Formats: sequence, structure tokens, C-alpha cells
Amino acid sequence: MLTTGEFSGFETVRYEGPQSETALAYRWYDAGRVVMGRPLGEHLRFAVAYWHSFVMNGADPFGAPTIRRGWMAEGDAMTMARAKADAAFEFFRILDVPFFCFHDRDVVAEDDSLAGTLRRLEEMTAYLGRKMESSRTKLLWGTANLFSHPRFMAGAATNPDPEVFAWSAATVKACMDATQALGGANYVLWGGREGYETLLNTDMGRELEQMGRFLSLVVEYKHRIGFTGQILIEPKPKEPTAHQYDFDAATVYGFLRRFGLEGEVKLNLEANHALLAGHSFEHEIATAGALGILGSLDVNRGDPLLGWDTDQFPNNLHDMTLAMIEVIRAGGLGMGGMNFDARIRRQSIDLDDLVAAHVGAMDLCARAFLIAAQIVEDGRLDAFRTARYAGWERPEAQAMLGAGASLEAIAADALSRDVDPRPRSGGQEKIENMLARFF
Amino acid sequence: MLTTGEFSGFETVRYEGPQSETALAYRWYDAGRVVMGRPLGEHLRFAVAYWHSFVMNGADPFGAPTIRRGWMAEGDAMTMARAKADAAFEFFRILDVPFFCFHDRDVVAEDDSLAGTLRRLEEMTAYLGRKMESSRTKLLWGTANLFSHPRFMAGAATNPDPEVFAWSAATVKACMDATQALGGANYVLWGGREGYETLLNTDMGRELEQMGRFLSLVVEYKHRIGFTGQILIEPKPKEPTAHQYDFDAATVYGFLRRFGLEGEVKLNLEANHALLAGHSFEHEIATAGALGILGSLDVNRGDPLLGWDTDQFPNNLHDMTLAMIEVIRAGGLGMGGMNFDARIRRQSIDLDDLVAAHVGAMDLCARAFLIAAQIVEDGRLDAFRTARYAGWERPEAQAMLGAGASLEAIAADALSRDVDPRPRSGGQEKIENMLARFF
Amino acid sequence: MLTTGEFSGFETVRYEGPQSETALAYRWYDAGRVVMGRPLGEHLRFAVAYWHSFVMNGADPFGAPTIRRGWMAEGDAMTMARAKADAAFEFFRILDVPFFCFHDRDVVAEDDSLAGTLRRLEEMTAYLGRKMESSRTKLLWGTANLFSHPRFMAGAATNPDPEVFAWSAATVKACMDATQALGGANYVLWGGREGYETLLNTDMGRELEQMGRFLSLVVEYKHRIGFTGQILIEPKPKEPTAHQYDFDAATVYGFLRRFGLEGEVKLNLEANHALLAGHSFEHEIATAGALGILGSLDVNRGDPLLGWDTDQFPNNLHDMTLAMIEVIRAGGLGMGGMNFDARIRRQSIDLDDLVAAHVGAMDLCARAFLIAAQIVEDGRLDAFRTARYAGWERPEAQAMLGAGASLEAIAADALSRDVDPRPRSGGQEKIENMLARFF
Amino acid sequence: MLTTGEFSGFETVRYEGPQSETALAYRWYDAGRVVMGRPLGEHLRFAVAYWHSFVMNGADPFGAPTIRRGWMAEGDAMTMARAKADAAFEFFRILDVPFFCFHDRDVVAEDDSLAGTLRRLEEMTAYLGRKMESSRTKLLWGTANLFSHPRFMAGAATNPDPEVFAWSAATVKACMDATQALGGANYVLWGGREGYETLLNTDMGRELEQMGRFLSLVVEYKHRIGFTGQILIEPKPKEPTAHQYDFDAATVYGFLRRFGLEGEVKLNLEANHALLAGHSFEHEIATAGALGILGSLDVNRGDPLLGWDTDQFPNNLHDMTLAMIEVIRAGGLGMGGMNFDARIRRQSIDLDDLVAAHVGAMDLCARAFLIAAQIVEDGRLDAFRTARYAGWERPEAQAMLGAGASLEAIAADALSRDVDPRPRSGGQEKIENMLARFF
Repeated sequence: MLTTGEFSGFETVRYEGPQSETALAYRWYDAGRVVMGRPLGEHLRFAVAYWHSFVMNGADPFGAPTIRRGWMAEGDAMTMARAKADAAFEFFRILDVPFFCFHDRDVVAEDDSLAGTLRRLEEMTAYLGRKMESSRTKLLWGTANLFSHPRFMAGAATNPDPEVFAWSAATVKACMDATQALGGANYVLWGGREGYETLLNTDMGRELEQMGRFLSLVVEYKHRIGFTGQILIEPKPKEPTAHQYDFDAATVYGFLRRFGLEGEVKLNLEANHALLAGHSFEHEIATAGALGILGSLDVNRGDPLLGWDTDQFPNNLHDMTLAMIEVIRAGGLGMGGMNFDARIRRQSIDLDDLVAAHVGAMDLCARAFLIAAQIVEDGRLDAFRTARYAGWERPEAQAMLGAGASLEAIAADALSRDVDPRPRSGGQEKIENMLARFF
Repeated sequence: MLTTGEFSGFETVRYEGPQSETALAYRWYDAGRVVMGRPLGEHLRFAVAYWHSFVMNGADPFGAPTIRRGWMAEGDAMTMARAKADAAFEFFRILDVPFFCFHDRDVVAEDDSLAGTLRRLEEMTAYLGRKMESSRTKLLWGTANLFSHPRFMAGAATNPDPEVFAWSAATVKACMDATQALGGANYVLWGGREGYETLLNTDMGRELEQMGRFLSLVVEYKHRIGFTGQILIEPKPKEPTAHQYDFDAATVYGFLRRFGLEGEVKLNLEANHALLAGHSFEHEIATAGALGILGSLDVNRGDPLLGWDTDQFPNNLHDMTLAMIEVIRAGGLGMGGMNFDARIRRQSIDLDDLVAAHVGAMDLCARAFLIAAQIVEDGRLDAFRTARYAGWERPEAQAMLGAGASLEAIAADALSRDVDPRPRSGGQEKIENMLARFF
Repeated sequence: MLTTGEFSGFETVRYEGPQSETALAYRWYDAGRVVMGRPLGEHLRFAVAYWHSFVMNGADPFGAPTIRRGWMAEGDAMTMARAKADAAFEFFRILDVPFFCFHDRDVVAEDDSLAGTLRRLEEMTAYLGRKMESSRTKLLWGTANLFSHPRFMAGAATNPDPEVFAWSAATVKACMDATQALGGANYVLWGGREGYETLLNTDMGRELEQMGRFLSLVVEYKHRIGFTGQILIEPKPKEPTAHQYDFDAATVYGFLRRFGLEGEVKLNLEANHALLAGHSFEHEIATAGALGILGSLDVNRGDPLLGWDTDQFPNNLHDMTLAMIEVIRAGGLGMGGMNFDARIRRQSIDLDDLVAAHVGAMDLCARAFLIAAQIVEDGRLDAFRTARYAGWERPEAQAMLGAGASLEAIAADALSRDVDPRPRSGGQEKIENMLARFF
Repeated sequence: MLTTGEFSGFETVRYEGPQSETALAYRWYDAGRVVMGRPLGEHLRFAVAYWHSFVMNGADPFGAPTIRRGWMAEGDAMTMARAKADAAFEFFRILDVPFFCFHDRDVVAEDDSLAGTLRRLEEMTAYLGRKMESSRTKLLWGTANLFSHPRFMAGAATNPDPEVFAWSAATVKACMDATQALGGANYVLWGGREGYETLLNTDMGRELEQMGRFLSLVVEYKHRIGFTGQILIEPKPKEPTAHQYDFDAATVYGFLRRFGLEGEVKLNLEANHALLAGHSFEHEIATAGALGILGSLDVNRGDPLLGWDTDQFPNNLHDMTLAMIEVIRAGGLGMGGMNFDARIRRQSIDLDDLVAAHVGAMDLCARAFLIAAQIVEDGRLDAFRTARYAGWERPEAQAMLGAGASLEAIAADALSRDVDPRPRSGGQEKIENMLARFF
């Protein structure tokens, strides 16, 4: 059996600057460089996803696994779980990455019973805790996998069978405990099966109630145990389910409002999920920002020509910069971070493919953030935008938005003044040219 | 110039039953037939769209108008507006249709000033009122066109220029007045330009505030004038704008909640808009039903292979039946109705194409409703669904959803009982087979 | 271990007519009923897909298998392969279905070497042959799975490694031998990995040459062994690969032309693949018909709201009828047939879900064909179409298409006659109404 | 009436280098800079599109024109046509652009008869010729607008009415004459209405024959008049028509093969059309390159979230560089060029929006080409690709592709050698990292 020695040939990746010819060096990610008053690393808070990097094996609906690592071999569950953890922390060391994220199922396989499964998680939590003592990599968020096992095929909290709700509640409690024990900054819920395959056998109203109740239980538990991290929902519109209830940022906002949770829960937004919902990544970030629920990001890229979650590592500087501008406009990510919910391609079977993918993505995001910061600090972009709305600064304009305004008073005023608004250029191409100078 | 005499060759279309060989007869739409305790006509409340049927001329982004009617000729605005109204009411008479819908701009062209424009609308409202006196066709809803004129190119309520907000307020006030004067059952708002082309020049937070404020003004005005109809928002995700704020039912729900308007405003849902948002029509209906905001429908069909609003007349009995099932499940449309927001194809230039399109669509919807009613009354479909959730009827299950439940108590109970939920078939294909028997 | 006894509770499904209340009866599929001069069964030539019905286990990219059958258990490869074959033939008996289809890998798992793997196939071919002796179910087509094993991750015939080309050649030869031995009516090639993930590492020109050469070898071999069936290519645009070379019917036609194979190879068209390529199923059928390469069909349905191959059983009578009209217009399927390349939903885990899915789909297709035949025999649809092109029957019109015509002569004639063509209605809605009468 | 004086305030745009702070300067487009052995300008051969830049007025399906220029005013057709031409050449002078492109209808409106319309074109051709004498801007291509007038609503060459075929032939002849007279390097055909709205009223086989015959007539005429430019087809899958026959590069290739025209006709590929067909721009370029039919490009960008032809000016450096790499790999554009088939946004109503859009796009393309050239000249990208296929260089591998090979011989050899191909990494992420260094 291979051990973590698999990574032993890799040096820790260092920042060497844009001109570096080293294959595995950071050319842009200089964590300590101060940007907009803070070290770059604190803006970005990169995280490695345990799932994609240590569990994903290249299988797809039409093909068998192509990726084999020592820690994926057959063997005793706890032994293999520890081998995987050892490999993970060696990988974190190589990248010198500040955070990681995990689902319970990534960390260790299920046992034969709920009790056994939770016990395994507890043991592995202790093991991860010990690994973290000698590592600088912290936990960005934990979560529960409530979608892979057949029991979840019709949902977790929204399952027609209340026993699955109970199972899910017990599991989330355990995962929140584990996240708290490991000092996690956030706890995430992704409802991969919270939705439906066909409306014909589905009572949507009932399922939404179940889901709202479940989330309330989670929030109450958070307060009871004094977990100081954020609770985050990760929207996705479809896949695996034909329709998922947490469709996009705006949909989740309405859901939170309905259950009075908009002050308690924020969003973990993913680029590829935005695309599947028919949005740009920057749209989802701007929406969450406008609604006050921006939490954290899963940075990856989808393929607009493919209709499923390709979860590729990001590589388009222009697109990522547009997203970073909205992150800055929204005031940054706070306790959130940027998790690489991305997997190497099925043909990228070598171990250095995995390292290279992360290095390239971290550099891409760092560079995009640096450019975005320059654009924002330059000020011309926002000056253009502010000028566009300047008319609203007049008191008469503000009055229309304030208490005491009425449709008939506004109408009477408009008629008396014989208003005749003239279109003004939105200047999109000029703005795009302006931005091009920063690339 | 042609006059409404254009329609003089058409007899009023009558119900003749499925075996009828008459080209223009209703084969399924028997308005008086009692279904589920009420006349079919009261379930369906069909409406003709003034816009598509009397203004749309077959122009598209790549081609000039192909459809020419007498009332579309050049001429004095008020004269032509009356000629169009005369034609419209002759058309309503031919179809014997219970309702129609209009935008202000369908009814009469703008004048040179806001005042002149509103005056024209007022005059035409009186004219329409007189036409209605000798017609059995009522007004399902009125609305304002706040998207065609260049002044709206950057939005109406969300415009960066407050003068456009003022213009829009005056216009909506006038359109609400007209709708009330004509006894309209609903007033609709569609925000075709309430969105953005590029986030770079857009302050989404500010625009959403403007939009919320505008809607509040509308609701307040409704109460002040004693308008007893419903206020409806029509969601659409995009087109003409790259992104529109009223993306879909769930998004609008969140918006209404944010501004405390979820008890005041409902939705006018369109099949083609659902498709553009990545949803089925039945999904949008079920969502609105579950959230208590189902108002009215724009029944049409889109082309899933084309990415724009094709607004075709519906012709797929299976698809429409799935939508009708959800209408029935949601308790029906109440004051709403089914508006044919549909246009004949650009090549369908004959006058009888227009008549045939409506007759076919009304028959399709009537037949779909009759089948849906049979399915619901048969009971097996809902029995299957109810059985799926039967476990939730147990008191212990209900307790998990009630006050006093906690994650830790549910977890402790699950562990003590060693729960082990077993997947049960969702039976989708069997349900689909069951439905096939009703077609 | 479960054996084929699993199916022992199921009676053979019989035609009982539309009014039958039997859950598992054919209501429309009356194989012996004569339609358009031939028994219905000979028009349809239904086939069960070995893969979906006996191998697919409900796993998806986010979840573990949900479907467990006795013959899927762990065990000796040949023992399990025979158990599966026993179950399959019992299932065919239940459906009384005239055909089945298989990939080599459905029939038996790989052995440790190419030789061992081919030997296993040979043994199982003999076994299947014996099963067929006591069955009325014949082989519609065989094919090779050249996409699941990791060796195919970069393609089969188009692989950058010629050893994979060699492996694929040996495998296809063996599968053609097996197909011939079992009296198969067709041999199919589906290039699931014949495409690329990124152009950056791909030499498309070279890969297309390899693919063309491979197909030529197949055709030559067919003639050498005297296989009298058809060679078919199954187009699909993407999934698993980001781009697949056999994108759609028109693309494959160009490929065949390039290698001079348009008289040797036809198409196996799938509804869901058409959808993924941005086409309707009827478009692909009509295209293949117009180009003379219509071979066979994989009837299923996709979900236009989802971007992957959902491979659902068809249930929309309207859509399927449109496809059947084009099948009839193209002169029928000849040696081809209608294979249900469809899988039950992941939640449809009961054995009777599998049976019901096939019964429902066969009925749907039979009914759609019956309606299509009525429409075609009625004649009004094609009369409308013929009338539309009537102008082309004039000799002067035909002359423009014939030898001796020239742009300048046509222009001179048009000018001399001062032509001024007038648009005529395409009558789409009227045609759609006409069709509605047959449902 | 405004005259071309509208542009009089604009200086000719000059190359000033990346650091320039001038709003309207080229920062990357240095036409004379030698790259890969030729001046940059000769690689790029930029062209302004008469249609988008001088005719497009901001109208969309939901809104009236927003863009007003002096030359768009009402007035005598020939006077206005000359005013437009004057403006166009002043604009070309400002951009110092080497080429332009036009449709006949852009240049001058139709007259009341075919003869009158052709006479107007002839007059304007003479006028344009005189303008070109004092300009350095040449004609990249001419084309005929066979889609806007109602007579073309059911197609031009594929119209059910042969009179429209005749009209189209006369028009194309005249446009080819005009193109030749103006020294055009190419003649383009775009079949915007050559397709169908519904198969029900369409005889696809017949229409494809008409289209093939028409193209043959065009090619014959080209040779007869000694036109030395290229004939190009511009593929587009849909819009305005529901399906267009020239779907994409591969489809057109099959069509050309069918009519024996693959040596006579090449492609004009558009980025946005590629997207609508489900392809990347670089895919279409690589496909045309592999098939030997790469002709010219319409560089623009679409919005992957919108389903129609947005025809935006390109602004994504990463995406454009991928396209330029394939242009270089395919050996460049020869007589083709890069036409900006792009329009300013509907809100970009100022004249400097139009200038800025072109300057930004030319810079973007120039920069992308410079980067692509560097990548290609660096050699590592192609070295990686070549190494991937190295196995095929062995004689035994080549033999499998050559005459004399057979499936059975390859199989026998594979078995005798007990081949067992091992997957090798495709290295996608590493390649993407390698490319990142050039941005």
C-alpha cells in the first residue's frame, strides 16, 4: 500500500514572482503582500477541498476510476482514513495553504450503524485535530454528506420518510460538533438531494416546511453550543436532483426570509453552480452582497457548453477578476474564504497534476484579486457608476423613495414639471476598455 | 384603409364537440360544462392579449414586418387606436372569449408629452369602456409598457435617472386608474428593463431598493383608490435585459418578503418565462402555490431549443396537463385567468391564422384542464403521493417539526432506536403510466 | 444470491386494449395489428437495452447504487454473466419483446488480458445463442464498450496511443463476430470518448483521420465476413467527453462523405442525444432521411432543463408522434428498430418499476406510431406541404435547378419578368390544429 | 440633417503602446510590427461591419431605436445612402482600419422593383468605389441580405416559391458583381432564413437540393466572371429561423461534400454563432482548419447565459487567445480577415461609444494574437501535444492506418503481443498553467 510518501518528492511551493521559471512556484500568490490595507492571504483565505483532492478518483457516468492513490486502496476503514488524512496534511504542507474543508464522508467511510458511523467521525476528528497541531492549515468549514448513501435518494431534511430526517439531524449535529472541535470558521449545508425528480410524487409545500424547520434546528443548536462560526447554505439549481430547492442566491434569500433566518445564515456561492442556474459568478456575489448574505466562495469554473458541474480549476483571468471586483464591492468575505471546489480532469492522473492544478488556481485568484483591487483603488470605475445615479442625490429624488411619497403626488409633480427624461449612454464598451488597461 | 370589416367574414366560434369537422369550432372548450363543481369557463378565464393579437406585426431582429392589418396603417393616432379597438372587440366576439389584457401602449401611441400621452390613454379608456358595454368580454388585467420607449432603456423604477422613476409612477397611476375604470380583475407589472446589462455600471442594491419602493407605492395607491383586483408581478429572467430582477417565482417571493409585500402581491406566471429561467411551467405554478402567491397565468409555449421568448401558442397536451394538475392542486386561479401571451408565427400572415391559433390554444387548454380534473378526481395520483409521506403523520415525526424539538434530542432518539431508514421506490414510471391512461 | 427467479412473479404482458385496467398490460401495442400494410410490430421492432435494464444500478456522480438485483451481486464473472443472461431472457419473455441490444461489457466483465476478455465474450456469445434458441427475442444490434475502462480515457480509435487503437480493433472484430453469430440485424459504433477534453493537447486532424480509418476497417471486415446487417454510427455531441466528433446526424454525414462511406454506414439516432446537440428528435430523423442514412433509433427522452443524458423512458405522446411522422416520411426503419436506451429513475428501485417502464414506453411508441400513421394516411398534412412547393413543379422553375442554368440567365429572366414574389402564409398554427384532431 | 461632420471631432486613432493614457489610442494594435515573419496587420486584416456600425439603431424586440445618427434620418434613399457612405469612410479613416464589409441592404434601401433595387446598388457601388480611391480601407467581403424583406420569410434559395429563388439569384449576381468591382477579397453567403420554423410544413430534402444548386450556380458564376476572391459560407444554427441548415462548420462541410464544392467554398466563422451551436469559437476554427475550409472570421462575443446573438465586441483576452492559437495552428487566414460583426449595446448611444468599442476590440484581438504567437513560438505547447501522439510515429502504428491493414490482422497482432495500454496523463491543468505565463 502506498502511504503519504507519495507526496514526499514535492517541496513546499513558494512565492517566486511573475518571472519565475520554476514549474511549481507561486508567481502571484504572495500571502504577506499588503493589499487594500491587509495581507493578500487574509483577503483570499484559500482552502483545499478534501473531497475533490483526496477522494475523487476520475470515475464518471460512462467510465471507471482512472486515478489511483495509495490511500484509496481497499483496507480497514480507520486505517485508510488515517492514511488519507496523513496524505492530506502533507499536501497542505506542500501548498502552504491556510485552510481546508471536508464532508464527514470524505474523512471516513460509514460504519454499519448510525452510532458506529458517528463514532468513526469522532475518532477521525481527534486524529485531524492532532494533525492540525503540527500544521498551519486551519478548517474553513465542515459539512455533512447527506446525498451519497441510498437512504438519501429522496432527500435528507425533505425526505418523505421522517427516519431520514432524524438520521440527518443526528449527522449534522455530529458534523457541527466536529467542526467546532476543529475550530472551523463556518459550517456549510448543501442540499444536493433536497429537491425533486418529478412534481407528480412530490409535496413541495411540505418539503419546504421540513427544510425550513431543519435549518432552524441547526441555527438553534449553533447558539446552544456556542459555535461562533457562520452557518452557510450552498445554492445549486440541479444535479443530482432535477430541481433543487436552494436554486440560487435569490431563492435562498426568500427561503431564509420565510423562516426568519436571514440574519443567521449566509451563502457559500460556487461559480459552477451559478452557471448552472443561468447566472454569472459575479451576479451571485453581487446579489448576496446586496442582500447582506455573502458568506464564502467555492471558486472553480464550469463549462458554459456543458450542462453539468464540471468543477474545473479556474483559469480565466478576466472572468475571475469580474468576480473579485464584486467581492471587494461587497466588503470582502470576512470569516468566509475561497475553497477550491474543483477537481482535476479525469485524464490528469499524475500526482503532480493535482499539485499543479492548485498552484495555478491560487495564482489565478491572487492575480485576479490584485487586479480587482487596482481597479477599485483607481476609482474611475466606481466614479462612472456613481455619476450614473447622481440624479438620485437630489432631495426631490430622494423624497420619492421616502415616507410620505405617493404615486399620485409623484404623478402630479411630473405632470406639472412636464418631465421628459433623456437617455444617457451606459458606456459599457468604454468601461470595458478602461478595465482592459489593468490586465 | 382596411377597417374592422377585416373580421366580418368570421362567424362566432362555437363548441361543437370532439368529432366536429368544422375548421374553426371548439372541440373541447365548452365554457358551461360543469367540472369540479364549477363551469369550465370559470376555471379557465381565457384572455386575449391586445399586444400580440393586434399590434405584433411579424418583425424580428433580422426582418421587417410581414403582418399587415388595416388598423396598423399610418394615420392619426386616435383614429387608428379606435380602429384597432373596433377590430379587437370584433375579434373577441368571434372567439366569444371572456377576457382581454392590455398595455397602455397597445391601446394608443404616445403623444409628445407625458400629459398628452396620459390624456390619450384616458380617452381610449372611455372608448374601450363603451365597447365593453356591448360586449361580454371583460378585462382580466391592464398594465403599463415601461420598456419600449428609449427613456426606459436603463429601466423604469430602477432607472439611474429619477425622472424616469417619476414618469413611470405617473404612468402606472394612470394605468391603474384605467384598469379600475374598466373593471379589471388584476393589475400586472412586468419589469422588462428592471435589471442590468453589465454589473460594472450597476448598483444592484440601490436599484432593488428603488424597485421595492415603487411596488410599495403601487400597493398603497391600490388601497387608496379602492381597487379590489390583485396586484401581480410577472417574473422573467432575461430578455430584453441580460439579467432581470424578477427572475422567477422564488426570486420575486424573496423580494416581496423583503419589502413586506408577500400578502399584497401575487404572480402572473408565463410558461415561456419559466423555460427561460430553467424551470418547467408546472414548477413555477407549484412554487407559487406552495408560497401562497399564485395569481394568474400567461399560457403559451417556448421552444426549449431556442434561447428567447418565442411566445408560441401552446400545442402539447401532455405538458399543458402537467401544468393544469398543479393549478388544481394549488386551488385554482381565483381572480386570475389564462392569458394567451402568444403570437402567431412570422409566416402566419393570414387573418384566419390568428383566429385558428386562438381556437386551437383554447381547445388545448380546455382539454388539458378536463384531463387534469379527471386525474385529480380519480384520486390515485394524490393517494400515491400521500402514501409516500405517510410516515410523517406519526406523532413522533410531527414532534420533530414542532416547538421543543432540538437537534440533540432528535439525535439521541435516533441513536437509541438505532434507526436505519430503507429506501422506497418513488415509482415515477408507474405514475407516468397511470397518467397515460387519461390521455 | 437471487436468481432469475426474481422475475418469476411476472406474467407475460399481453395486449388488452385501451380500456384495460390491468396494471401491466399493453393498451396500444398490438404487435399483429396491420398498419400501413404491415404488422405494427414490424414497423416498431422494439428492443430492450441490456445495459440499462440489467447493469445500471442507480449510481450517479453524487450517489451510490440504489438498485440491487440478484445478478448484480459479487461473484465469479462467468457465473454472474450467465445469471444476468438468464434474468434478461426471462425479462424478454415477460415483455414478449422482439429484440434486444448489448455492449460486450454488459454481457460479461473484462478478464485480466485482451485474450481472456475476448474468450469470455465468445463463451457468453455461445450462452446467449442457446438462450435465443428457446426465445422469440432476436438481436437488434451488438456493440463494443470502448469508453468505460481507463485505457479508453483519451479515446479508442482516436487515442494518442496506437496500442489503444489496436485493442479497440481487436475488440470490435470480436463484437462483430458475436453479433453475426447471434444473427444481429445491425452493428453499432458509439464514440463516447472519441473527442476531446481540451483542444490544447489535441490534434483534431490526426484524430479524425484515425477515426475514419478505423471505420473503413470495420466496413471492410463486415464485407469480408459476409455480415449482412447494417453498420450504424450513433451520434452524440458531448458527455462524457467535452466534445465528441460524432456530434449529430449532419456532422456524421460529412465524416462519412469524407471517407467515402456514406453508402456503407447509417445512423442510430437517439432522442436525448439530439436534444444535447440542440436538435429535436424529429429533426435528426428528418435529416438522416433527407441524406439517406436513417438506420435505427434509440427511443428515450431527455429533460430539456438538464444538460446531461437523462435517458428517461418516453412519455410525451405529442413529441413522440412528431418523431414517428418523420420515420414514416423517411420510409420507415428497415432493418433498424426502436431500442429503449432508457433507464428507470434512481428512486425506481423495485423490479416492477423496470417492467412498468418498458410497458409504458412500448405503449407510448405504439400509440404515437398509430396516430402518425393516421395523420399520414389522412393526407391533409402532406397535401398542405406539397401545395406550398407547387410553384416548383413548373418547368421554368425546374429549369433553374437543372443543368444549363446560370446565375446571369436567371437574373436576366427575373428582371425581364419584373418578378415580385408575395409572401404566403406558412399556416403553422392551422397545421398544429389539424394534428390536434388525431390525438 | 446631420452629416458626416458628426465624426469630425475625432482624430485618427494611433498606436501609442500599452502605457498610453490616451482614451482612444491603440495600446496593442501596432499594424506594422512584425510577428511570425509578417506585419501584425496582415495577420489580422481587421474589418468594420457596415451593418452594425452604420445601420443598427438599438431597436430590440422589446424596444424602439435608441441610437440616432444624422445619416439615419428620413430622406431620399440615394441621398441618405451617400450620407451613410460618407460617414462610414470618415469612420474608417478614424480607425485607420484596413477593411470593411457590407450587405447590399446596408448600402442602400430597396427600390420598388428588382430592377430599381439593383440599379441603386450599382450606383452606390460606383460611389463606394470613388470613396475607396481616397481611402486606404479595402473591401474584405460583400454579401446580399436575403433575410430582412418579407419575401424571404420562408427562405431565399430554399423558399417554397421559385420566384424568390430567382430574385435571390439576381441579387447575389449583382452583389458578386459589386464585390468584384470594389476589389473584394471574399464573397460571403449567410443563410439566415435558409432553414425551417416547423418540419410539418417543410420538405427538408427538397430545400437542401435547392440550396446546393444555388451554391453551385454561385461558384460557376465566380469562375465565369474571373472573381479571384474566396466564396465563404457563414454557419449559424438558429435565429432568426428555428433551425438553419448551415448549422456549424462540420454541417456545412458535409453539405459542401455532398455537392462537390469542398474545394471551392470555405467558411466565415463567427464566435457568437459557434456559441449558439454549442461550440467554442476555437472549436469551429480548429474544425475548419482540420477540414481545410477555414476562410475568415467574424470576431465578436456572445453571452453564454443568453440564447440569442448578442454580437458584443470581444473583451475576454483569455478566450480570444485560445481562438488565435487555433488560427495560427491552421496556418492563418490567408485572404480572409477579422470582421467585427459586433454592435454597441443599446444603451451605448454616444458616437464615441462606437469608436471606443472598435478600438478596444482591435486592441484585444491584437494582444491575443501577440500572446498566441508567443505561445506557439515558445514551442512547449505543441511539444507537449506532439509527445502525446509519439507512439503513432512508429512504423507498426502507421501500418494500421495504411493500405493493407485489416481488423483481423490488427487483432491477431494485438493478441500475440498481449497488448495492455496504460493511461497517460493528459496534463490539462499543467498546460493551462503553462499558458498562464504568457498573459
